[in-house]
Amino acid sequence: MAVGNDIDDLPKNAANYTALTPLWFLERAATVHPSRASLVHGSVRYTWQQTYQRCRRFASALSRLSVGLGSTVAVIAPNVPAIYEAHFGVPMAGAVLNSVNIRLNAQTIAFLLGHSSSAVVMVDQEYFSLAEEALKIIEGKSKGNFKPPILIVIGDESCDPKVLEYALGRGAIEYEKFLETGDPEFAWKPPQDEWQSIALGYTSGTTASPKGVVLSHRGAYVMSMSGALIWGMNEGAVYLWTLPMFHCNGWCYPWSLAALCGTNICLRQVTAKAVYSAIAKYGVTHFCAAPVVLNTIVNASPEDTILPLPHVVNVMTAGAAPPQSVLFAMSQKGFRVTHTYGLSETYGPSTVCAWKPEWNSLPPEAQARLNARQGVRYIGLEFLDVIDTRTKKPVPADGKTIGEIVFGGNSVMKGYLKNPKANEEAFADGWFHSGDLGVKHPDNYIEIKDRSKDIIISGGENISSLEVENLLYLHPAVLEASVVARPDERWGESPCAFITLKQGADKDEPRLAEDIMKFCRSKMPAYWVPKSVIFGPLPKTATGKIQKHILRAKAKEMGPLKRSKL
Amino acid sequence: MAVGNDIDDLPKNAANYTALTPLWFLERAATVHPSRASLVHGSVRYTWQQTYQRCRRFASALSRLSVGLGSTVAVIAPNVPAIYEAHFGVPMAGAVLNSVNIRLNAQTIAFLLGHSSSAVVMVDQEYFSLAEEALKIIEGKSKGNFKPPILIVIGDESCDPKVLEYALGRGAIEYEKFLETGDPEFAWKPPQDEWQSIALGYTSGTTASPKGVVLSHRGAYVMSMSGALIWGMNEGAVYLWTLPMFHCNGWCYPWSLAALCGTNICLRQVTAKAVYSAIAKYGVTHFCAAPVVLNTIVNASPEDTILPLPHVVNVMTAGAAPPQSVLFAMSQKGFRVTHTYGLSETYGPSTVCAWKPEWNSLPPEAQARLNARQGVRYIGLEFLDVIDTRTKKPVPADGKTIGEIVFGGNSVMKGYLKNPKANEEAFADGWFHSGDLGVKHPDNYIEIKDRSKDIIISGGENISSLEVENLLYLHPAVLEASVVARPDERWGESPCAFITLKQGADKDEPRLAEDIMKFCRSKMPAYWVPKSVIFGPLPKTATGKIQKHILRAKAKEMGPLKRSKL
Repeated sequence: MAVGNDIDDLPKNAANYTALTPLWFLERAATVHPSRASLVHGSVRYTWQQTYQRCRRFASALSRLSVGLGSTVAVIAPNVPAIYEAHFGVPMAGAVLNSVNIRLNAQTIAFLLGHSSSAVVMVDQEYFSLAEEALKIIEGKSKGNFKPPILIVIGDESCDPKVLEYALGRGAIEYEKFLETGDPEFAWKPPQDEWQSIALGYTSGTTASPKGVVLSHRGAYVMSMSGALIWGMNEGAVYLWTLPMFHCNGWCYPWSLAALCGTNICLRQVTAKAVYSAIAKYGVTHFCAAPVVLNTIVNASPEDTILPLPHVVNVMTAGAAPPQSVLFAMSQKGFRVTHTYGLSETYGPSTVCAWKPEWNSLPPEAQARLNARQGVRYIGLEFLDVIDTRTKKPVPADGKTIGEIVFGGNSVMKGYLKNPKANEEAFADGWFHSGDLGVKHPDNYIEIKDRSKDIIISGGENISSLEVENLLYLHPAVLEASVVARPDERWGESPCAFITLKQGADKDEPRLAEDIMKFCRSKMPAYWVPKSVIFGPLPKTATGKIQKHILRAKAKEMGPLKRSKL
Repeated sequence: MAVGNDIDDLPKNAANYTALTPLWFLERAATVHPSRASLVHGSVRYTWQQTYQRCRRFASALSRLSVGLGSTVAVIAPNVPAIYEAHFGVPMAGAVLNSVNIRLNAQTIAFLLGHSSSAVVMVDQEYFSLAEEALKIIEGKSKGNFKPPILIVIGDESCDPKVLEYALGRGAIEYEKFLETGDPEFAWKPPQDEWQSIALGYTSGTTASPKGVVLSHRGAYVMSMSGALIWGMNEGAVYLWTLPMFHCNGWCYPWSLAALCGTNICLRQVTAKAVYSAIAKYGVTHFCAAPVVLNTIVNASPEDTILPLPHVVNVMTAGAAPPQSVLFAMSQKGFRVTHTYGLSETYGPSTVCAWKPEWNSLPPEAQARLNARQGVRYIGLEFLDVIDTRTKKPVPADGKTIGEIVFGGNSVMKGYLKNPKANEEAFADGWFHSGDLGVKHPDNYIEIKDRSKDIIISGGENISSLEVENLLYLHPAVLEASVVARPDERWGESPCAFITLKQGADKDEPRLAEDIMKFCRSKMPAYWVPKSVIFGPLPKTATGKIQKHILRAKAKEMGPLKRSKL
């Protein structure tokens, strides 16, 4: 027993120390608000007591199949109740949750399931054939050594009975039936060590091959507290799931919602109409959305919207930096937009453009410009800086000097699974390297200037593709824009713009291309002006990030631009 | 470097792990809101940048005197800026903050300073002579081995220049001068290990001898996040310091305020008038107060109040359970009262009577009755239960069966300093034992019935002194009441009530005593009715807790009650 003769000589014991984990939040919610709605999905409504029981059944059912410490459970599902429950049920069995992006192809899913050695694959009925195809690919490559994973199929009210029947015929067990095999009073397993892994998620593939980001119970605990505090998200918040839970574990909000005894509103399909009607019907207070979703909300037809909003709706956006024009339009409609930034490797967003009351008196455009920056560190992230890529020293806070954005502290991932080389690079010099380039402003707020690979080097000058894009968004006909480097005979590289036009915009594309270039010349240095303009839909990842590597490949295929002029 | 071939084989590194500590909150506040008011005290106003610089100077000045890891710095001060700064400056030097209750006598302070081996004693000018007397007592007992601590005197605008001059003549250094010896850019020392001690505080002595409660950086981090979330305390909160910071480190709110980049309003003297005028002047959003302070606010003269309140003011109360009548009167005035419960050993409050929306439709008295319960665990506390004192098993949630309230998890103290016996008792059976007796209601909310030693056993029946007190508070003439056991010839013990009357209440005490007993007979079982009623002021600890041990001694001195009737 503790002696305590010295001020630091008081060891940990069973009463004063336990592993930090977000799992106790669920037990608490069920104790404090057993009959409050935990989750609503169509006509399905669960209370916190039910959710806790379902998650205990889930953990128990997995344990009975010897799925526990060291095992990985993959989930392929949109925002249905089962994926929410998996965020608790899987780690309550001691296992690691691998949420798979539903928009990937079978080939990539096969890679993920193999790489993660997932012992269980849980798949929404809508994606059953995709999962089946992925498993066939694995089987094909296994040369007779294929050990099929336990296959669980998730049905819901929109389920086609034939699909379910088909899945069952293929050896899958239905999710609800699977839960029935578990004990609702199961003594689940809190982690012995808070560094234990809770989740695995693969990077979304704006770069070549997906990397498996591993997160800990400790980090998830810190981020779910920190993510609530940073956003002023209080007890009883009503949260709309527009952000896919398979993306960075829904930025840790599945766990925050349990801590806050709030209510989750699930959506299988995100449309502007569904968002507005959930706000009206459930009193949604918060939702997260990639810029592409904000764009949809801003450009929704009037008949799909409910304006003015019946109450303040807090929107958190991250991913690619949203164009200033979109931020501005959202705030005009009465949404309170919090702009954040982060990566899968930082448990989702871990910097926030903290709003300052003194900005309230600025013109809206100035507000939007300030709020488009990536900002400052979350409370739960201890270190953030912009460092010179050669000297590794912090750049001056001058808003000009470009360096790499680096992170450190308790909301940085454990590392990449089975990828020592990637870990070595990512964790060099005591920092986590984001690969994003940015500046530090005199007010200490950081701003992304580009991904390092997105910088265009033209005639030896660096061009930030992001800044060119931001200006393109100001053109009235531009819905979305992405700028990449195209080989250029004279300048080495020159900017090439891929643009999606707004509905109803002039279809005379050559004339419009000329008009846009003219617009650019009035707004930016000549060498920034795109020398090539291509119209059409932009390729995107499941989370709405524009896939620049595809555009870059396209620009390369187009061949070098001949003797372009500055 | 991490290999990660196994899902749990990814070790901690410099980029993804750092000790949890509330100290980084201050660095963050200074980075994000450098020019926002951190603290206001009379005509003094500091910004977060200034507070951070002052704390770095403080830590630097201590370090230059070799005060660091393993050292203890005692502070004897009311809620002035220096004690706020000590919550950061002292641990930023690696040392442990020992906040001393200013209402203790020199004898007790001498004990604390000696027991804690405080290397530095920082004392507010108003308490200089008290500190001097305490040091003389230590010197007297030291038999020539006295090593005087470094003595720092805190002056402020209300300071008598002669007192300061006197202190300087006694070898003290003035606090502001001391800060000047430090470097405002000092590279302060975050803890290497989050289990490192951050603070030491002595129990307030409702029991015999003070015990030194030791808290960790980790616990302080968890509680300062959890205390903000539980109270819906958001970014930029304006917090009034009515609760002494020397009491359980102001329930960890000095650190929460930095996390929230809020504003601290300091008060040297807490009066109802000062509270109301701070609400009006600074837009106070939150304050904490012991029930005795709530009583003062409720019973303030109309000319001292500002009603209706200009905005919602959130009040957190803890300590002794507040009488239902006080809770009710506060809510009638428009204060939103959150009722919490905890001990120095649990970093201050760590249970909360979480308000349920369904209570809104109940009659006010029913609301107050529900809200007078101690409630459920904080988000940052993992385990809370009421256990049978013999079997150590949880009592049924029937609202009747009395057991001991026990705590476990990350917001339980490291232990008592130099007190192995107390540690053994406190941490028996894997729980922290509160010594408070209570029940668990069917809705899982706990309610204190009494301190184990406060139960009155009359004719073999247990009487909860707390329940008798709660009913006494409903009598219109009663301002404060405390009920203890008095020896009784017939029944062994019988309830003895000590009562402070409201101003203007009937001075015909014998008649009033009879009236109160009659009132009691109409409200409670006959054996609960106090057989003795004594009028006068009640002895209290510095934090407003009524010192029942003194009343118990008085009741004993009165001698056994002769043949009292039931």
